[in-house]
Parts: sequence; C-alpha cells; structure tokens
Amino acid sequence: MPKIVDHARRREEIAALTVRVIRTEGSASATIRRIATEGGFSIGVLGHYFKDKDDLVAFAFQWMATQSFKELDVAVAAAEPGLARLRAAMGFMVPAPGEPSFIAVWLSLWDGALKNPALARVHRAYYARWRRHLRRYVREAVVQGEIAPLESSDNAVDLLSAVIDGLWIGVTFEPGRYPLRRRRELVSRALRDVLGAD
Amino acid sequence: MPKIVDHARRREEIAALTVRVIRTEGSASATIRRIATEGGFSIGVLGHYFKDKDDLVAFAFQWMATQSFKELDVAVAAAEPGLARLRAAMGFMVPAPGEPSFIAVWLSLWDGALKNPALARVHRAYYARWRRHLRRYVREAVVQGEIAPLESSDNAVDLLSAVIDGLWIGVTFEPGRYPLRRRRELVSRALRDVLGAD
Repeated sequence: MPKIVDHARRREEIAALTVRVIRTEGSASATIRRIATEGGFSIGVLGHYFKDKDDLVAFAFQWMATQSFKELDVAVAAAEPGLARLRAAMGFMVPAPGEPSFIAVWLSLWDGALKNPALARVHRAYYARWRRHLRRYVREAVVQGEIAPLESSDNAVDLLSAVIDGLWIGVTFEPGRYPLRRRRELVSRALRDVLGAD
Repeated sequence: MPKIVDHARRREEIAALTVRVIRTEGSASATIRRIATEGGFSIGVLGHYFKDKDDLVAFAFQWMATQSFKELDVAVAAAEPGLARLRAAMGFMVPAPGEPSFIAVWLSLWDGALKNPALARVHRAYYARWRRHLRRYVREAVVQGEIAPLESSDNAVDLLSAVIDGLWIGVTFEPGRYPLRRRRELVSRALRDVLGAD
C-alpha cells in the first residue's frame, strides 16, 4: 500500500519537474537526460515510472491540466455564480504579461500533439473541461436572469473560448498592447457581444 | 547587379526550404545541418546568406508572412469590398483540417519568440498587418452601410483576430468539432455579435 502511494506521488513529482524544465528552459532542452539530471536520479530510474518519453510527457501535461483547474476553482471561488464567476474565470485564463503563464509548456504540448495522438487527447480533454466550466457559468447567468437564454450556448462557449486563446497569444507576444485595463475591457466587450451581458 | 539579385533570390529559396523542413519534420528537426542537407549545400554556404541560425529563422518567418499575405490578397480579390471580403479573409485564416496550415511553423515561431526578440518582432509585424486588413474590411462595411459605425473599431478588430486564433487552434487539434459548416457558422456569429452584421 505505501509502495503504491509512493509510486503515484513519485510520478507526480517527476511530472512537476518536467513541466518546470519545459517552462524555464524550453521544450528542446527537456530531454529525458535533462529531466533525470534535474531530479537527481539516473535515466534508468525513469523507466520504473514511465514507459517512454511520450508517456512521461503526456502524464506531465495531464498533471499540469489538473493543477490548472484546481487553481481555476480557487480563482472563481470568491466570485458570485454567473457573470462574476465567468469574468473571474476568463481573467484567470489570460494571465498578466510576465506571470508564469505556462505558454512554453502549451507550445510544447501543441508541437507534440501534431504527431502524437496521446498528447492530442490531453489537449482535447483540457478544452472539453474548460468548455464545461464556461457552459456552467453561462447557465448560472441565465438562471439568475443576468442574461437572456441563448440561441446556441455551444456557439457562445466556443466563441468565448476562442477569444481567450487569442488574448492569451496577444498578451504573451504583444504585452504592451494588452495592459490589464485593456484585457478587462476586451473580456467585458466579448461578454456583452456574445452573451448580451451588460 | 545579377549577383545581388541572385543573393536575394537564394535567401528566399533557403527561407522556403527552412519553412518546408519545419512544416514537414517539426522544429526540433530543423537544424542548420538538416537545412543544408535538404538544400544540397554545405553548412559553410549558409554563412554567405545568413549571420546565424536566428537570422535565418527570422528571415524564413518573414518570408512566410509575406507569402501568406499575398495568398490572402488572392483569396479576397473575388469578394466584394466590406463584409464579403471580411468573411473571405477570416475563412482564409482558418484553414480546413488537414490543409497545410503552417501551424507547425507558427508553433516554432512562437517557441523561438519567447526568448528571441527578433522573432517576437516578426510575430508583432504579422499581427499588425493582419489587423490592418481586418480594419480596412470593417471600414468598407461601414462605408457601404452594411454595418453601423463602431464605438471602438480597435476592440472589434482585436476580438475578431482573437476569435480566428482560437478557431485555428480548435480546427488543428479538434478537427471533428469544427467541420466547414460549423466554422462558417462561428465566423458568421462572430461578425454578428462583434460588428452587429446580419
């Protein structure tokens, strides 16, 4: 029993390590050798925990996604259900320039996902879960009468999710163009345009 | 004179080659050695045309951006000014799943741009140019009375550009979710929501 717990915990530690190496040194540097060195163990030890590098990387991304949703739950917990929570969630997903935004890790995931179906599945599971969050907040806003019922909440959710992806890229590579005030303005504008929110 | 022409043409050939290697084999494979081998010349020859790998990669992305805007001009030429042209441009920017969408090349550009200011400048120049296109089509639509004048065309253009980035990621990694009919529906919906277009 303790052995299994240790095994699971060790996999998570290695996942965290892998994400940190990708984030700070770039995906090209995140070789098996580099990860083992960083963790202070031999390459052979990694074999006890992961089948191969693809298995390790897929697990690391899944771990990161889980962390990210835990942080999202914390970020929205203080906000009222409905539009306030939706606004908090969208703000959480577009971090300020310079915040550890994990974009290096996402670029690495996407690069891998182009060829590796296991990584593409991690992407799809993450986005499905993010859309479920958005859908829930939108529903709360309708139930509370903050917005009118939608013609298609699928379309609305997809547009809001697309806007967030685009803003995230904008904040990362054109930080001067997207100061906090402007990010808030664009999120508000998207909520007004897509949901008819005041 | 012919020598200068040859020099410029040779740089473009090497840029095209570099983009092709990144697109087909991934950025990790696009080493100086691999590019030289693909072009059938020695690594030393590359030194006549580019200062170093960063210089080559920045030029290759710039070349790709120029190509992309030439193709955009062709794609919108048949459409009437205004909303039809805007719709054509947005459709062009969200290619169908499986089309050579250059996403591998963009991921590689973004990955490099996180650390290399020259590459970040290529990104910013590209997006500034894309926004100028969007702004022009939106202005045409206003002039023709297809839509009402906008409160802030900067915000509208930024939201439309963000939607396209998000859809592009969606089409790439969740192709089943975004068939042609749905992509058109989401673009139409974005035009209606953001611009008030019918």
